Amino acid sequence: MSQAILDKVTFNSRGLVAAIAQQHDTKDVLMMAWMSREAIEETLATGRVTYYSRSRRKLWRKGESSGQVQNLVDMRLDCDGDTLLLLVDQTGVACHTGRCTCFYRAQRKGFLAEVVPQTVDPNKLYGDKDD
Amino acid sequence: MSQAILDKVTFNSRGLVAAIAQQHDTKDVLMMAWMSREAIEETLATGRVTYYSRSRRKLWRKGESSGQVQNLVDMRLDCDGDTLLLLVDQTGVACHTGRCTCFYRAQRKGFLAEVVPQTVDPNKLYGDKDD
Repeated sequence: MSQAILDKVTFNSRGLVAAIAQQHDTKDVLMMAWMSREAIEETLATGRVTYYSRSRRKLWRKGESSGQVQNLVDMRLDCDGDTLLLLVDQTGVACHTGRCTCFYRAQRKGFLAEVVPQTVDPNKLYGDKDD
Repeated sequence: MSQAILDKVTFNSRGLVAAIAQQHDTKDVLMMAWMSREAIEETLATGRVTYYSRSRRKLWRKGESSGQVQNLVDMRLDCDGDTLLLLVDQTGVACHTGRCTCFYRAQRKGFLAEVVPQTVDPNKLYGDKDD
């Protein structure tokens, strides 16, 4: 499979590129994570979004533990090649806190408000595993 | 002005946090850039989005040269505190190439396609300056 996008990606000093996941139909921004060359290759080959976990230092197949997978709809690259925009179809919730998006806190006068409700109990997402 | 969000932001080793700009009404993802503590403070104080330019190593008041400013509508923070989502009202085009979004290239079979048209001549945006 040809992966022309890889020739134009500018990886950082750790070999990673930022990747924003956006739900393709509602256009909600779900999360931001990082991808390695291998993660991009696997994502394009399988149609399932795979990131690179900086904390665990290995490929992170989104939803492998929780079932909350992301199917790739389109992969976009920005003008300077250092950020990807992934249009995805998210199964369930994107955030490990049980919310549809990771961006659930907002600046308000004097405090940080939670503006997106929890729709799933995170304990039910993971049991004794994490994602 | 209280800036509660600053207490919860996890800055990286360079003192920066990733910031995604999304047009608040169309929900188009416009660009990704970086913010310092000072950039966040200035953005919240003025309502105009200010980033930190890693290449120029200074505050980057978006649109200062081009007029293509971003007015802040809301500032969101993700679950682990290392990415901001800026809901903005973009004047003109977000991308220095003259396109509404920086994410104008897409992976297609065998090639990288340009899927977002240029709507402004970039020479007319900047004259002899850059942004």
